[in-house]
Amino acid sequence: MNTSTDVAPDLQVSGWLNTDKDLTLADLRGKVVVIEAFQMLCPGCVIHGIPLAQTIQRTFSPENVAVIGLHTVFEHHDAMGPISLRAFLHEYRITFPVAIDAAGPTDIPLTMATYGMRGTPSLLIIDSKGKLRAHHYGEVSPMQIGAEIATLIAQGNAVEKSGHDKTSDAGCTPAGCTI
Amino acid sequence: MNTSTDVAPDLQVSGWLNTDKDLTLADLRGKVVVIEAFQMLCPGCVIHGIPLAQTIQRTFSPENVAVIGLHTVFEHHDAMGPISLRAFLHEYRITFPVAIDAAGPTDIPLTMATYGMRGTPSLLIIDSKGKLRAHHYGEVSPMQIGAEIATLIAQGNAVEKSGHDKTSDAGCTPAGCTI
Amino acid sequence: MNTSTDVAPDLQVSGWLNTDKDLTLADLRGKVVVIEAFQMLCPGCVIHGIPLAQTIQRTFSPENVAVIGLHTVFEHHDAMGPISLRAFLHEYRITFPVAIDAAGPTDIPLTMATYGMRGTPSLLIIDSKGKLRAHHYGEVSPMQIGAEIATLIAQGNAVEKSGHDKTSDAGCTPAGCTI
Amino acid sequence: MNTSTDVAPDLQVSGWLNTDKDLTLADLRGKVVVIEAFQMLCPGCVIHGIPLAQTIQRTFSPENVAVIGLHTVFEHHDAMGPISLRAFLHEYRITFPVAIDAAGPTDIPLTMATYGMRGTPSLLIIDSKGKLRAHHYGEVSPMQIGAEIATLIAQGNAVEKSGHDKTSDAGCTPAGCTI
Repeated sequence: MNTSTDVAPDLQVSGWLNTDKDLTLADLRGKVVVIEAFQMLCPGCVIHGIPLAQTIQRTFSPENVAVIGLHTVFEHHDAMGPISLRAFLHEYRITFPVAIDAAGPTDIPLTMATYGMRGTPSLLIIDSKGKLRAHHYGEVSPMQIGAEIATLIAQGNAVEKSGHDKTSDAGCTPAGCTI
Repeated sequence: MNTSTDVAPDLQVSGWLNTDKDLTLADLRGKVVVIEAFQMLCPGCVIHGIPLAQTIQRTFSPENVAVIGLHTVFEHHDAMGPISLRAFLHEYRITFPVAIDAAGPTDIPLTMATYGMRGTPSLLIIDSKGKLRAHHYGEVSPMQIGAEIATLIAQGNAVEKSGHDKTSDAGCTPAGCTI
Repeated sequence: MNTSTDVAPDLQVSGWLNTDKDLTLADLRGKVVVIEAFQMLCPGCVIHGIPLAQTIQRTFSPENVAVIGLHTVFEHHDAMGPISLRAFLHEYRITFPVAIDAAGPTDIPLTMATYGMRGTPSLLIIDSKGKLRAHHYGEVSPMQIGAEIATLIAQGNAVEKSGHDKTSDAGCTPAGCTI
Repeated sequence: MNTSTDVAPDLQVSGWLNTDKDLTLADLRGKVVVIEAFQMLCPGCVIHGIPLAQTIQRTFSPENVAVIGLHTVFEHHDAMGPISLRAFLHEYRITFPVAIDAAGPTDIPLTMATYGMRGTPSLLIIDSKGKLRAHHYGEVSPMQIGAEIATLIAQGNAVEKSGHDKTSDAGCTPAGCTI
């Protein structure tokens, strides 16, 4: 197994908002990492992508899932600089950490290019061992995303607790499930 | 372990629609079973409950998840008889099996009373071993339900395949996850 | 002017709900009359048609606009009889008068056939002199319907008050318009 | 009659987008003028206000109704400058003329202050003679707005055509109404 091809590439960013310290994917090992790639002036991001990321943030425990925004501006660069982005995060009450994708030699920023994203919004899901496990573009089903994240959490827990009876760790009761 | 308290109570029904043969929970062991309890003239059922059940049906493989409707009429009994229900299923394009909860000595039908449902819509989730694991009332989050069902599928698979490396069975690829 | 071709045909009904006395279009002269033709088990009626009629009822004064439901059952007749309809009106909190379109020699009830409706939901708008002025089928724009009704109210008022300065009767102030 | 109190105050703007020539309310006499005051980073504007203005633009003829945007920035001024606004209009496919409200001595721009707007989105409706007739704040009902605009159109037409039989000018047929 070649680790270099298995682990999701590092984020290449020019700055962070909503966090005191810069984050790396390596720092987040042990959690499922959800990356919402967006542009602040992309209607599909505002209507679908950002609310989906906020729902993920509300649905799952931060101990299990880290939600990160990635501002992947590939058009109207002058219109979506850090000052505008900061105001956008404030107005839309976005509280998860947001990275600014680093500019590269073309209009496409570096992380967006590395991951081969088709546009915005794009949603990446990385498992607790750092592997990219899902990559969606456009509007996606909240139920489907909930299922994908929960599957990865369960798989991570299963590995961690191998040798034990997993069903005894169930987080579900008649009153609801704790994921 | 006392089976009588662990296993979800049997459905007590006066008939079935959308299925050639009557179903029992015992027949469905090995799958996660989702029961959508509804009344055909309940607005919350029509607006939230039924569409949620249909989304579950579309999101998960029938090999993993069985979706069942349960018509739990506790008011306006004359208005929601089998002829009206059959037309309702046709008009709303409901294709999963639907059981008619059996009348009891009060207005509350028997299965509804047994499970202590607060009203309609109610959503029950039973794991692959037949245990009731979630019981929701009213409007619920599609992402949350997707996560709960996926967690139970993963736990069932983990038990079934104990001794194997679970992560090698991952259904997720960069193109998306197969639950 | 041939009255027989100008005035909207009478409703042919087998009964009324939500009203103490039977209504005729002639009784409603002087008001704009909105007729929402629906079937209680038609999803488009439940999702679009009925809420639109309820919004009309809330938006306009009953002195200016009479909202009437017309239950035009043309399929699943046994499933949508008066007992089921009565429960439906109760559950969906429909408070405007509802007429039951009279059965005819075919599956299409008589008023539906007379007006040449294409299906349900259909929306008829009759002006204060009794003329049919709009006939819509399917989902329609609330703004468009609001504009059509207001236009007919204004025209009716203009005729009634001919010789006066109509602008002095304006119902609009900076705080909003009274239609 | 004191004209100064009757006629809606002039717009005080620092620039226009989506139009070749600057507009004044005086230029638009004879039409109903709808002014959608918004900020590009205000979620309520993006979700409710802008779509409402676009629906007005689609519903009414430009011969009867002029839709104008007014960018009334009162916070995050650096984040919503002309370059960002231009990109916003492009991304949200806003094609009606948009004025930039002129900065004043406080954070509140001049036109916003003159009209006493409470915030964004705000919707102003000015009749064909130039009088302010409605002033809404926040989310408003599309049906209500459609009715208000149509009422003002009908009143304007009634004045213009005084001495004629207005009902003969009806734009409604059984196939629908032309407002």
